Amino acid sequence: MTAPRTWRNPLRDERDKRLPRIAGPCGLVIFGVTGDLSRKKLMPAIYDLANRGLLPPGFALTGFARRDWADQDFMQVVYDAVREHARTPFRQEVWDRLAEGIRFVSGTFDDPVAFENLTSTITDLDRVRGTGGNHAFYLSIPPGAFPTVCKQLARSGLSAQSSDQWRRVVIEKPFGHDLKSAKELNRIVNEVFPEESVFRIDHYLGKETVQNILALRFANQLFEPIWNANFVDHVQITMAEDIGLGGRAGYYDGIGAARDVIQNHLIQLLALTAMEEPVSFRPDDLRAEKIKVLSATKPAAPFDETTARGQYIGGWQGGQKVPGLVEEGGFAKDSTTETFAAITLEVNTRRWAGVPFYLRTGKRLGRRVTEIAVVFKRAPHLPFDSTATEELGQNALVIRVQPDEGVTMRFGSKVPGTTMEVRDVTMDFGYGHAFTESSPEAYERLLLDVLLGEPSLFPVNDEVELSWKILDPVLQHWENSGKRPEEYRAGTWGPPSADAMMARTGRHWRRP
Amino acid sequence: MTAPRTWRNPLRDERDKRLPRIAGPCGLVIFGVTGDLSRKKLMPAIYDLANRGLLPPGFALTGFARRDWADQDFMQVVYDAVREHARTPFRQEVWDRLAEGIRFVSGTFDDPVAFENLTSTITDLDRVRGTGGNHAFYLSIPPGAFPTVCKQLARSGLSAQSSDQWRRVVIEKPFGHDLKSAKELNRIVNEVFPEESVFRIDHYLGKETVQNILALRFANQLFEPIWNANFVDHVQITMAEDIGLGGRAGYYDGIGAARDVIQNHLIQLLALTAMEEPVSFRPDDLRAEKIKVLSATKPAAPFDETTARGQYIGGWQGGQKVPGLVEEGGFAKDSTTETFAAITLEVNTRRWAGVPFYLRTGKRLGRRVTEIAVVFKRAPHLPFDSTATEELGQNALVIRVQPDEGVTMRFGSKVPGTTMEVRDVTMDFGYGHAFTESSPEAYERLLLDVLLGEPSLFPVNDEVELSWKILDPVLQHWENSGKRPEEYRAGTWGPPSADAMMARTGRHWRRP
Repeated sequence: MTAPRTWRNPLRDERDKRLPRIAGPCGLVIFGVTGDLSRKKLMPAIYDLANRGLLPPGFALTGFARRDWADQDFMQVVYDAVREHARTPFRQEVWDRLAEGIRFVSGTFDDPVAFENLTSTITDLDRVRGTGGNHAFYLSIPPGAFPTVCKQLARSGLSAQSSDQWRRVVIEKPFGHDLKSAKELNRIVNEVFPEESVFRIDHYLGKETVQNILALRFANQLFEPIWNANFVDHVQITMAEDIGLGGRAGYYDGIGAARDVIQNHLIQLLALTAMEEPVSFRPDDLRAEKIKVLSATKPAAPFDETTARGQYIGGWQGGQKVPGLVEEGGFAKDSTTETFAAITLEVNTRRWAGVPFYLRTGKRLGRRVTEIAVVFKRAPHLPFDSTATEELGQNALVIRVQPDEGVTMRFGSKVPGTTMEVRDVTMDFGYGHAFTESSPEAYERLLLDVLLGEPSLFPVNDEVELSWKILDPVLQHWENSGKRPEEYRAGTWGPPSADAMMARTGRHWRRP
Repeated sequence: MTAPRTWRNPLRDERDKRLPRIAGPCGLVIFGVTGDLSRKKLMPAIYDLANRGLLPPGFALTGFARRDWADQDFMQVVYDAVREHARTPFRQEVWDRLAEGIRFVSGTFDDPVAFENLTSTITDLDRVRGTGGNHAFYLSIPPGAFPTVCKQLARSGLSAQSSDQWRRVVIEKPFGHDLKSAKELNRIVNEVFPEESVFRIDHYLGKETVQNILALRFANQLFEPIWNANFVDHVQITMAEDIGLGGRAGYYDGIGAARDVIQNHLIQLLALTAMEEPVSFRPDDLRAEKIKVLSATKPAAPFDETTARGQYIGGWQGGQKVPGLVEEGGFAKDSTTETFAAITLEVNTRRWAGVPFYLRTGKRLGRRVTEIAVVFKRAPHLPFDSTATEELGQNALVIRVQPDEGVTMRFGSKVPGTTMEVRDVTMDFGYGHAFTESSPEAYERLLLDVLLGEPSLFPVNDEVELSWKILDPVLQHWENSGKRPEEYRAGTWGPPSADAMMARTGRHWRRP
């Protein structure tokens, strides 16, 4: 059966621009449905989208995993996940309609029979639910399994598209282990799905505050004139976590902080911060600018001085004693996996030449925070008494990505009193206070975009490969150095070398 | 007796730069000591300065008025004023020491005997209190009385300075009625006191937030690059009062809003907002820049379209019915005194050419607020869908002078949700929240500066005359037009012509 490509809910006022588009008839198949991500993020996001009226009425959700479940068992798993983690209130009628479209297919990734079962399940859904042959495959599985699943999808005909039915694949980081493996992975995926059908999820790009970087920069007159090397001293991009790796050794050992976070999240944040204004926010225009700025970006040398890596040892965090990495289960006693990484990048464009971009990420740091801090130069001349500006730092614009999403501006203000003394103060905008609208979860936004075929927020293979090209020389240097990552105590802000890489040019990290 | 020029309190830590300098031995004579200003502002400020340890131990305060008071009577008046209006806590020992130096001289301004009594009082104070021959004369009297008092001070020898004793005069607005009378007034004052001994009080310049304009602009890197005609669309300077004129008719009738507020407060705020960076904050450097920018400023024509004036009629304010101006006591039934005035100024410098400065002030407006709003141009290009920026206004930086002192920045931010929609939000810095230091009252600051001989915050005669030169053509136009001020209802934001003067160029006043 052929369904219209765009289904419209007659109850919605189409003139209201704030209402996002509704996905047309379609289904979603999740591979790796028993994992944490599925349960905590994907299933609740699907319910929330349904609750917001953004899914088509006949939407179908199919789980694929090794478990010997019936549809009813899987439905119960989804139900529990929704009740526990959904953002929007539970409404029985929404759930009932969603539940009617829930299916489960049991099998391993290398089992052709399972994929034949999946094919007939989907064909049946097209008939019963009216999904119109439009299906997305979400690979919430280890990257090592990507080639197998892609090949099975091709072999079983599931990846085959036609002019009136689409097939899309959604993949999660890590997108490879280095440039070489990323290229190989892209080759395998693109053999089965054309690039426009591949949706690489970097959930950071689904965050409101990340998208707001573009709004801040390009909807305003205030910031863009000073957003360049004439006025900016340096940029700090931080993603700090307070948690350790307990239980995630299997994924993390041998990967480390740089591959896990810098390659994707932080380099994407850099691209949005540093790129030129796009002609429009259409996906192609946006990507063109991201690719351009990433092509101009490379790590600053010498790496011994411009980078830092560390591994946490036991310490105290939030009043609790916590173990070091190698005392946690699953890690080799001599694991050299870094849990902290910091690098210095230079962006060789007219706008940014000479402005270092410092990227850092780590586990078990002082507190959980992700932020972009644009730190400005000091005023070229201060017509004040020298003692009056002793407590004046550098102006900064800080975009807080999470938590406590918002923007902070730091600047100097007169201290009340009879002398002209200037001290740093902050001006604050809180996303949560400013808007009555609540922010959709990143996965809600991204899953809807997948179903709508809206690719703006998904990095293409060129971006992924450029990110590895930026990071590879540093990773190789670390590997060849023969040194272990420097130790840092849990609850601190990383190893001494992280401070040293800033101090060499008289700078210092913010304490967020 | 000759006292050292700079007296140091041994209890104060001179290395702490936040501590202002302490006035050396000196006395203050207030003419017009029975007025509101004396009681509500000057006397409390003197106590507060004493309480902060900023007055010399032998400080003397002499009152001069027609009343037949003894020293003790005047002391009681000062005591009551201090207990009712002082900012800092009452401390008996501070009061006791201050009270010992309080004197009263009874007389009229044209009575030579009274001035001889004043002379002997002061000579006695020099002997008893060690005021060292250093005295300031505060003329808190109608400007019509300035010439008489100045002449008496000269005749009695009270204005005579020497290398080891200073005499200063403090005068309050209005500094004349137009350019001609201002020049005449300056001539009379300067005949008796050299210009460096004349302190013209514009109490707005003593406000922390006004001084902070200079700190904001010149201690930071963020604002100055966009502080010019390339990025600024226009500037609005507003001083709105909610009170009417009940009881002040005697002063106000025939003066009006433009002379009362625009000529001094608002044009001074314009000068601080628009001036170039001074070489330093030394008084001469600062004045040079203010004079330069005022010389480049003139009213934009045609005045029928670029100015507005109004007179309030009865209305409702804060839930209360209030009478119109001419129903209040003291005003002529056909009084053409304006209680609202708005003008458009142009600043013909490279920095500001083409950027209108709108100044407005009024009584019985919507609420009490003084602010400077720098309104920026729209971004030259918006790479958004046109519907996405419908609710986006212009960026603005607003310096709130009073009340709720601080800075607000208005800019566009993404609205949470699945579309890229941008809406105005604000970022806020509150002076009261940011600093634990409490702000001294403007009069504290200014009186101390008089006693220290620190002239930075006092406009010189050139500035006063330039302000009149800017305003005179508008005043003459209004007078020659033969029209009455337009009526506006109490509790609104002025007459329709005030909106029209903005609307003609597609702009509009902020509703603060």
